[in-house]
Amino acid sequence: MSTTIEVGESSSRKVSKEKTPLIGAPKRAGGWKKGVAIIDFILRLGAIASAFGAAATMAMADEVLPFFTQFLKFEASYDNFTAFQFFVISMAFVGGYLVLSLPFSIVTIIRPHAVGPRLFLIILDMVFLTVATASAAAGAAVVYLAHNGNQDSNWLAICNQFTDFCQQTSGAVISAFVSVVLLLFLVIMTAVALRSH
Amino acid sequence: MSTTIEVGESSSRKVSKEKTPLIGAPKRAGGWKKGVAIIDFILRLGAIASAFGAAATMAMADEVLPFFTQFLKFEASYDNFTAFQFFVISMAFVGGYLVLSLPFSIVTIIRPHAVGPRLFLIILDMVFLTVATASAAAGAAVVYLAHNGNQDSNWLAICNQFTDFCQQTSGAVISAFVSVVLLLFLVIMTAVALRSH
Repeated sequence: MSTTIEVGESSSRKVSKEKTPLIGAPKRAGGWKKGVAIIDFILRLGAIASAFGAAATMAMADEVLPFFTQFLKFEASYDNFTAFQFFVISMAFVGGYLVLSLPFSIVTIIRPHAVGPRLFLIILDMVFLTVATASAAAGAAVVYLAHNGNQDSNWLAICNQFTDFCQQTSGAVISAFVSVVLLLFLVIMTAVALRSH
Repeated sequence: MSTTIEVGESSSRKVSKEKTPLIGAPKRAGGWKKGVAIIDFILRLGAIASAFGAAATMAMADEVLPFFTQFLKFEASYDNFTAFQFFVISMAFVGGYLVLSLPFSIVTIIRPHAVGPRLFLIILDMVFLTVATASAAAGAAVVYLAHNGNQDSNWLAICNQFTDFCQQTSGAVISAFVSVVLLLFLVIMTAVALRSH
């Protein structure tokens, strides 16, 4: 019993402390911040979908060419390319983080003036924005090579043979960039909302 | 019970100290914010050095193999690889932005409580953090392929032949990642400083 009272009191005290110094009446500026928090939640759902979509599409990109012999098999799979492996793992991590961040996003909807959750979200969002950007860019670099090849190093374009594989990996990279853009937008929005605390 | 009261008091003191500048007396809490602004400036100089260093190292990476014939020339240069071209251009952009951001960083040193320049800096820093991460990761993906090759797509490692070229490009990628880490640190620091405005 004592613990519950303590927690309740301290949190209510903290919240009132956080709010009162600002303007005095905390309800006035709450409107647009609640709106920002709700948009944050919706964008986060979109980013989850695109991150998991990217990871899943890349993980299932696998093509065996039909003209293989008994001993020689032409197969392209994401785990042949280290950049694509990194892509799958890190996009899955980003998606997992985004799912875990949903409760914090809900907290900012309920309490639009709480600084703690917002700061927590913006810092982790930035870290995972960097992870998502890195994997998307590394994937894009390899997809580009697969499409166009490189004459000077004698790397041939493999997309003529592995058409489906190339389409799947390209789609995964595009989906990853969608989640990067959503995350960047999330982070900038949170920074603007933080600014007026 | 005594502990909760202590905590409550200290936090309330802290909060009131941080918040008062908003209302009118800017001098009291300026200490740590000025410190943050100075560290921001120093880190920014480091990020400029590493960004331009990365761009310059990559741009000068060029190797002609000694055993070329009259008609056939083996040359590896950064502009044969699209990912490396993107790397040079975008790292130069990042360095240029960082130089242009120095005046704003100085403004935050002089006026540690100004919200505008800090918000401006954090938003543009995040955008260029994404650009720097993308170019570093794309460069890293191609450097990895140059070092290790890829058996399934029949891309051979070219680093056995172009040793110097590979060392230069690897160094450029490492330098780019240094500037990414510095930028990430800058952005997180600015977010924490913004939070208590």
